[in-house]
Amino acid sequence: MKFSLDVYIIVDLGFARGRSLPDVMAAVIRGGATVVQLREKKATTREILGMGELAKGLCRQAGIPLIINDRLDIAMALDADGVHLGPDDMPVGLARKLWRKGKIIGASAGTVEEALQARKDGADYLGVGAVYATSTKSDAGEPIGPEALARIKKASGMPVVGIGGVTPENTAPVIKAGADGVAVISAVLGAPDIAAAVRSLKEVVSWARL
Amino acid sequence: MKFSLDVYIIVDLGFARGRSLPDVMAAVIRGGATVVQLREKKATTREILGMGELAKGLCRQAGIPLIINDRLDIAMALDADGVHLGPDDMPVGLARKLWRKGKIIGASAGTVEEALQARKDGADYLGVGAVYATSTKSDAGEPIGPEALARIKKASGMPVVGIGGVTPENTAPVIKAGADGVAVISAVLGAPDIAAAVRSLKEVVSWARL
Repeated sequence: MKFSLDVYIIVDLGFARGRSLPDVMAAVIRGGATVVQLREKKATTREILGMGELAKGLCRQAGIPLIINDRLDIAMALDADGVHLGPDDMPVGLARKLWRKGKIIGASAGTVEEALQARKDGADYLGVGAVYATSTKSDAGEPIGPEALARIKKASGMPVVGIGGVTPENTAPVIKAGADGVAVISAVLGAPDIAAAVRSLKEVVSWARL
Repeated sequence: MKFSLDVYIIVDLGFARGRSLPDVMAAVIRGGATVVQLREKKATTREILGMGELAKGLCRQAGIPLIINDRLDIAMALDADGVHLGPDDMPVGLARKLWRKGKIIGASAGTVEEALQARKDGADYLGVGAVYATSTKSDAGEPIGPEALARIKKASGMPVVGIGGVTPENTAPVIKAGADGVAVISAVLGAPDIAAAVRSLKEVVSWARL
């Protein structure tokens, strides 16, 4: 991949305390996000396409990739940079067959087995977690901790973002465990100052690598 | 199109009074549906894929096409026969670019203008309505009646199914207005005997053409 997974922000307006998509996107980009994933589970296809058009324009301007959560149809229609597929979404192997080479397909993995399967199916990176306890996904299960992330990174050799309950305060162990970056929703989207929250994450990711 | 739009059944389990997808599909096919559209708005992508696999197997066996509502990703992954796109779904022109030739794209139209736009965008057939008052779609607007359907059919020259509040009792005027078939949800899915309800529709479609 030609882009950096350092600070991977999942934009789900459900966590944004009523702030609008343009405002949230602008702040996320101003803060220095290196990837944006758009996640929207409730709106209609037409509405998500509209949101995606806006997000894509801003990401293109900023020179960062836009990943669409779950919906390969929307990712394809937008000509987005990628799609992220969790356990409730389309199997990675199927998506790989439908979308052209060069497009990014991300997969979720909580175990070494899932990571190896995703690699075999053609995933480009892994969202590994939940690293810490999270309120964002009610079905995320017990946190696996940075140690399990280290095992998954080592076994798969794939680009990995740690996800689940990640905040600036607990980011360092995730990076030290071998993650290429952190994926964050609520610690950024719920923050009073979204750009500042992204900036904090980015600083921690940088110094944790020293 | 090589298939008949005569009796186009929309399978949405939300209207099936708790009956299972295999039972509903079997009855719809036994009754003689000529097209099945699978509509599922609440389940996860993975779940809809599972339902679609089952529906596709049964439709293939019966030699009738399976159309997926809204979700082009699922239609493509299943290699279904087509997708139906309403006003809240992906624009027809976008879907046409993403899916290979030969796949059926249906569009919804309530006016001549919408019909001509859909034709221009590459739609293969139109769902025209709501012909009658319906409880199935809360946002369907005022019923347009068979007369408006006749105008749309004439102006577009496209294959048309009448949709919205259609029952065996009021099917004849829809066919006499020029519809190639009727699309039905609740009058079939909510019937005590689903197969019998499909059979009744089919009989009316046949004699209304005499």
